[in-house]
Amino acid sequence: MAKELTKREENYSQWYNELVVKADLAENSAVRGCMVIKPYGYAIWEKMQAALDKMFKDTGHVNAYFPLFIPKSFFSKEAAHVEGFAKECAVVTHYRLKNAEDGKGIVVDEDAKLEEELIIRPTSETIIWNTYKNWIQSYRDLPILCNQWANVVRWEMRTRLFLRTAEFLWQEGHTAHATKEEAIEETEKMLGVYAKFAEEFLAVPVIKGLKTENERFAGALETYCIEALMQDGKALQAGTSHFLGQNFAKAFDVKFLSNQGKQEYVWATSWGVSTRLMGALVMAHSDDNGLVIPPKLAPFHVVIVPIYKTDEQLTQISEKALEIKKLLEDKGLSVKFDDRTTHKPGWKFAEYELKGFPVRIAMGPRDLENGTVEIARRDTLTKEFVNAEGIDEYIVKLLDEIQENIYNKALKFRTENTFKADNWEEFVDVIENKGGFVSAHWDGTAETEEEIKNKTKATIRCIPLDSVEENGKCILTGKPSKKRVLFAKAY
Amino acid sequence: MAKELTKREENYSQWYNELVVKADLAENSAVRGCMVIKPYGYAIWEKMQAALDKMFKDTGHVNAYFPLFIPKSFFSKEAAHVEGFAKECAVVTHYRLKNAEDGKGIVVDEDAKLEEELIIRPTSETIIWNTYKNWIQSYRDLPILCNQWANVVRWEMRTRLFLRTAEFLWQEGHTAHATKEEAIEETEKMLGVYAKFAEEFLAVPVIKGLKTENERFAGALETYCIEALMQDGKALQAGTSHFLGQNFAKAFDVKFLSNQGKQEYVWATSWGVSTRLMGALVMAHSDDNGLVIPPKLAPFHVVIVPIYKTDEQLTQISEKALEIKKLLEDKGLSVKFDDRTTHKPGWKFAEYELKGFPVRIAMGPRDLENGTVEIARRDTLTKEFVNAEGIDEYIVKLLDEIQENIYNKALKFRTENTFKADNWEEFVDVIENKGGFVSAHWDGTAETEEEIKNKTKATIRCIPLDSVEENGKCILTGKPSKKRVLFAKAY
Repeated sequence: MAKELTKREENYSQWYNELVVKADLAENSAVRGCMVIKPYGYAIWEKMQAALDKMFKDTGHVNAYFPLFIPKSFFSKEAAHVEGFAKECAVVTHYRLKNAEDGKGIVVDEDAKLEEELIIRPTSETIIWNTYKNWIQSYRDLPILCNQWANVVRWEMRTRLFLRTAEFLWQEGHTAHATKEEAIEETEKMLGVYAKFAEEFLAVPVIKGLKTENERFAGALETYCIEALMQDGKALQAGTSHFLGQNFAKAFDVKFLSNQGKQEYVWATSWGVSTRLMGALVMAHSDDNGLVIPPKLAPFHVVIVPIYKTDEQLTQISEKALEIKKLLEDKGLSVKFDDRTTHKPGWKFAEYELKGFPVRIAMGPRDLENGTVEIARRDTLTKEFVNAEGIDEYIVKLLDEIQENIYNKALKFRTENTFKADNWEEFVDVIENKGGFVSAHWDGTAETEEEIKNKTKATIRCIPLDSVEENGKCILTGKPSKKRVLFAKAY
Repeated sequence: MAKELTKREENYSQWYNELVVKADLAENSAVRGCMVIKPYGYAIWEKMQAALDKMFKDTGHVNAYFPLFIPKSFFSKEAAHVEGFAKECAVVTHYRLKNAEDGKGIVVDEDAKLEEELIIRPTSETIIWNTYKNWIQSYRDLPILCNQWANVVRWEMRTRLFLRTAEFLWQEGHTAHATKEEAIEETEKMLGVYAKFAEEFLAVPVIKGLKTENERFAGALETYCIEALMQDGKALQAGTSHFLGQNFAKAFDVKFLSNQGKQEYVWATSWGVSTRLMGALVMAHSDDNGLVIPPKLAPFHVVIVPIYKTDEQLTQISEKALEIKKLLEDKGLSVKFDDRTTHKPGWKFAEYELKGFPVRIAMGPRDLENGTVEIARRDTLTKEFVNAEGIDEYIVKLLDEIQENIYNKALKFRTENTFKADNWEEFVDVIENKGGFVSAHWDGTAETEEEIKNKTKATIRCIPLDSVEENGKCILTGKPSKKRVLFAKAY
């Protein structure tokens, strides 16, 4: 097959890059760092969006849309935020082009210079809090629970499809609350939504935790995250939820009249996940044959491939295949019947393995006689013959089983690749020789965190929410520590 | 009520601006020409998106995503296109900011100047055809039937919420075909989809037609459009579908190997509708009390308002109201029960009229006794008492009736405001004194079209597809004409 992939063992990074392109998920565009999300990749993203959007709405959120552009001065209003976000960004300086005087092409019209430059949003806290100022007068206007599906731009120097691109798609929730407690509750609730989505839809187990101060969102008092482990032993941050305190309310002067009749600053949260999840999906489950997509996010659940020699056989098989297709569609499944005569069954099998269709049904003349079909599972690559009778219920159950199996496999992998290290030697051994998560004591200082990173490239992924108190010693400095934190090399 | 609107008769334009803001659809943002689409407005847009997206998919299209940025040089490749689109646009020239040397705020880092400026997409033909070049080798790769939901930017000098904004949301379909016939068929098919959407969902009757050369999309061989009539007698272009010929294939060198074994240029179409439809929705149906939303696009179909004096009454009414709410929700309807004790029923009635909820149910103690509810229709502002028994089926039917009635009302208005003019005096009389569509003969020249526009502000909205051949004389020049075209002042 022309589309043969590099094996994960040989070069994991190359395997990923090739797979994303060959499975038609995405490709690089003519614009540096920007990707084209191809129809098959976008169909998966749409499934993610639909599931998340429903979860947001079920928890009381509504969607809205705020401008792509942010006036430059807005970034200067929140001190920490400007450091984190306003630096590497796309800057609009002019609003007109004109024909070049030499008649060759078009040039920027210097007469059309903006008085104030506009930044393409890297994240929308500033423009949204500038808007909320007008929406909020009293406690009766609170809470505001808005989400936005949008594109954002961060001028990354080293980009990689889905994992790090200059432009990416995401959702960003921005909520406003009357009390600190309510804002923290919201922050934690949305972290829970992300964890549930990751585990139930992406089939990726995640660790919920808090970021250290170093790794916090610029402008947040506390950043919660979910961290996942990829097959190469590197961690991937799959979603973040920020408790912003009153920082943005103060920066944009957003006060409300409390039910006690006092003017108070509003409390804020923000939370987001992005097309980065597409990268997590690929890297957590896929294998050397191609994508493995959890059924709940698969654009197609089933492909039916006819095996035939004569036109007459194809006609007979097609009739039965379309019957089965209809049965499955009545169960809400998405089914493709590939009766192309231009490609051989073997080619098709490889193609749908590459694309990660969860279930493949093959049907030949013998199957028609016996009243059976051959079913192949993408997750285990196993095959079996099954009665055509009752195939719809069989496949519905099978898809649930596949979803669960993919999750369990990822969970087993994570369990097997999570280690405790109690001293520097153990720590370095895991990071350098094994990979995976390392649970270890740390003295709580930014300096130590930085030094560990410089020595090993491992960072503190999070302080797990379920971390138990215990007495220990920092793996680097030996200073006392009360809690283990989770280290890993990360994407 | 604090939210009283200007009346349409007094000042239609002001009525529109006020209504969009007061009904919480959208508002101006801090960025010149860019709007914030508020949750209630966005909920209507989401309904439009869902209906259109389904229609696109049912006709074989898939979604994808292409970059926000387009290299400046891409625009120079298609001669007509650059004239139409590359002039008034947002230009990204730099990719970094830095702290100002005086310590005050941030400034553009002149060291981070892009080698080639990037344009924020005003429309995506160029970047998409540059991409399609790599997707298309042979006739087997065709057709490509992609759609994109995205934001675009056109630097308009005079903006108006929804109708004309610097940034707006839209969908743009971009298809590639092996033959001219197939591309034209696609162009017409998508015009049909738009017309169906406008009539069945927006409840706005539209005229399908062709644009004159003057009004054609920059780069198209033929632009098809749907034109709607607003309540002030002005027309609004509600969607366009372009037959692009081989222009973009030639500009980006996109050829395919035909099934005859020849290298040929690919044929193209593009088609789009935008958040402008929100403006059409408001202007076609709403009245001096507020929005009138066709049920198929209403975020909520029904509001239930309790009428009570004592807490005990409220408790009893609430019980019954929640029962009815559940019944209606089981029929797939969206229902709000407004039991706020902070607002009087009269205030609530006005609020939901302003917001355009299609049906209001009021329930008081007397209704509980009698087993009735009071139902008010937003479209006719009529009320009636109805048996609570069987209310769910009653309302499902009523919503269909309302949808139909809103459409019929708009159709009647259009019929009454479409005139024939056979000479200049008649023409000017209609344009200046009556408004509406004028069906008239035109000599087919761009000069005459331009002169009519300069004299009257009326433009040719389209050459209707169902226009019949007849001999006539151009209203301005008296030269012979074979067909009537449709004139109007337009948004």
